[in-house]
Amino acid sequence: MIHAYAAKEAGGPLEDYSYDPGLLGTDQIEINVESCGVCHSDMSMLDNAWGMTSYPFVPGHEVVGTVGAIGDTVTSLKIGQRVGLGWHAGYCNSCHTCHSGDHNLCGQRSTTIIGRHGGFADKIRAQDTAVVALPDAINPASAGPLFCGGITVFNPLVQFDIKPTSKVAVIGIGGLGHIALQYLRAWGCEVTAFTSSEGKKPALLQMGAHHVLNSRNKDELKAAGGRFDLILSTVDVKLDWNAYIATLAPKGRLHFVGAPLAPLDIQVFPLLMGQRSVSGSPVGSPAVIKKMLDFSAQHNIEPIVEYFPMSKVNEAMAHLRAGKARYRIVLTRD
Amino acid sequence: MIHAYAAKEAGGPLEDYSYDPGLLGTDQIEINVESCGVCHSDMSMLDNAWGMTSYPFVPGHEVVGTVGAIGDTVTSLKIGQRVGLGWHAGYCNSCHTCHSGDHNLCGQRSTTIIGRHGGFADKIRAQDTAVVALPDAINPASAGPLFCGGITVFNPLVQFDIKPTSKVAVIGIGGLGHIALQYLRAWGCEVTAFTSSEGKKPALLQMGAHHVLNSRNKDELKAAGGRFDLILSTVDVKLDWNAYIATLAPKGRLHFVGAPLAPLDIQVFPLLMGQRSVSGSPVGSPAVIKKMLDFSAQHNIEPIVEYFPMSKVNEAMAHLRAGKARYRIVLTRD
Repeated sequence: MIHAYAAKEAGGPLEDYSYDPGLLGTDQIEINVESCGVCHSDMSMLDNAWGMTSYPFVPGHEVVGTVGAIGDTVTSLKIGQRVGLGWHAGYCNSCHTCHSGDHNLCGQRSTTIIGRHGGFADKIRAQDTAVVALPDAINPASAGPLFCGGITVFNPLVQFDIKPTSKVAVIGIGGLGHIALQYLRAWGCEVTAFTSSEGKKPALLQMGAHHVLNSRNKDELKAAGGRFDLILSTVDVKLDWNAYIATLAPKGRLHFVGAPLAPLDIQVFPLLMGQRSVSGSPVGSPAVIKKMLDFSAQHNIEPIVEYFPMSKVNEAMAHLRAGKARYRIVLTRD
Repeated sequence: MIHAYAAKEAGGPLEDYSYDPGLLGTDQIEINVESCGVCHSDMSMLDNAWGMTSYPFVPGHEVVGTVGAIGDTVTSLKIGQRVGLGWHAGYCNSCHTCHSGDHNLCGQRSTTIIGRHGGFADKIRAQDTAVVALPDAINPASAGPLFCGGITVFNPLVQFDIKPTSKVAVIGIGGLGHIALQYLRAWGCEVTAFTSSEGKKPALLQMGAHHVLNSRNKDELKAAGGRFDLILSTVDVKLDWNAYIATLAPKGRLHFVGAPLAPLDIQVFPLLMGQRSVSGSPVGSPAVIKKMLDFSAQHNIEPIVEYFPMSKVNEAMAHLRAGKARYRIVLTRD
């Protein structure tokens, strides 16, 4: 049996819940969970905000643990090895997209907490391709958030071939944004943080930002006209996107890793006149996750986390819901 | 004196108009106009649709002619040489963007018919950098439209590194789209034309399309889900952009070379889940114009044009306004 925390209804409390996972699949890994990060999308799914949650619902998709069991055909990992699991729990491994190394875009990918039980549990299973070994140089206690928050902001740097000479800004310095600042600084870029909280400024400079702009100050936004090669937006609320597009350099890109539900209402002329792009991306492929872990180890990049024991998961969720997480919550097994 | 056709007011008729261009600038070329294409943006400017027209207004920015005079510092072109001039009439040549070869995105670029008199005239002047020699293998009679319509659809193939293995669709098969189909076919791509006019189908296949889809047929659009690496939109009207984005493959791009005035109302989730982009671009740089002319010569690509003598310019404009141009109008000097 797997012992987990599950909600019985939308927005409900997380309560003890056990389930029988059945026989281990031949290509599956069973992970003994050591810790699990808490992501905004755990809360969105808990609340059924996207209309695709089934209950009982077990959140958790930033898992770190050790391999407890492996299926018959698994050769990539060994019992006892420390690993991580993120947003995706498996891929078809046979489509053109998977064959191209873009498993994260596979049309048949399965998602750790959609139609499956997640990592707020003592154990979790996933396909071997989706489980990535954690390098020894990475601190396992804080590594969970790399597997969703971290890879989500690292992946665009690889996908769009961002250069150390690029000027990059980040909108929203929370669970994702605070890791983005660290990656961008280590990447060699000129880094700007957009924030609406002036009080965060010293912390943002500490994380890697060279510049901090107040996103509520229209004059500061205007003065940044034509400056950025890339803006990463991590927020899920509607902002004045055309004002941000005006801060893009020729060939610049406004890239969404957070998903506002409101349509973007983008003006075409500023895109057209400056050859600018607007785009989005989800988490990364297993190959890019490995790249991210190596880069994190090399540059001592680590999420800034607050720890809650898993038995206090409801307090952790309330802390996140209140917007108090600085900057990511990790649940540790009691 | 330069003898031209000018409108005195928004939407007014084009009438004989002469002006003294003054001394030839040291970096200028004076072109003896042989022909000039008629572009939708000539009509938009004539009507002051973008609020930036000054009158008397001389349209025309798809000029082919011969060099009649050169300024003292010009070394790139010689008297008598056949040349073309497009949307841009000059660049600062000294900013980072120009130095990077992206003159078409220069913040100080001047535009042939904005605050300047265009090519519906016997002569026109422009900066040497903006005037490009026409290869002998290009038919000069139909070459004018390459310098705006042609380069506008050719440029994205270069900018976004489109491969012969790409699947590309074109929305709107008019003055721009009919050249796009030819380029894409010669580029080696699988080419799809979206059209709302079923009657155009044989012509579109002839131009280079492998497939023709009826853009008013929701089932055809739905069946194309996830197919295209690039969609070039040449239209300036509002369409159901989210339906087109659904036809993009993972990493696909919806690219605007026409400029609808209505905001795009793009949903973020489909961008994010498929790592898709939405973007725009104007005409190309002088270097890409040269590349386009060479490619056109090599592959015998030629705009399909209807000729009007320049003295019948008002009939030509009425023909365009009525949506009857098949597929581009060229005015020839009487």
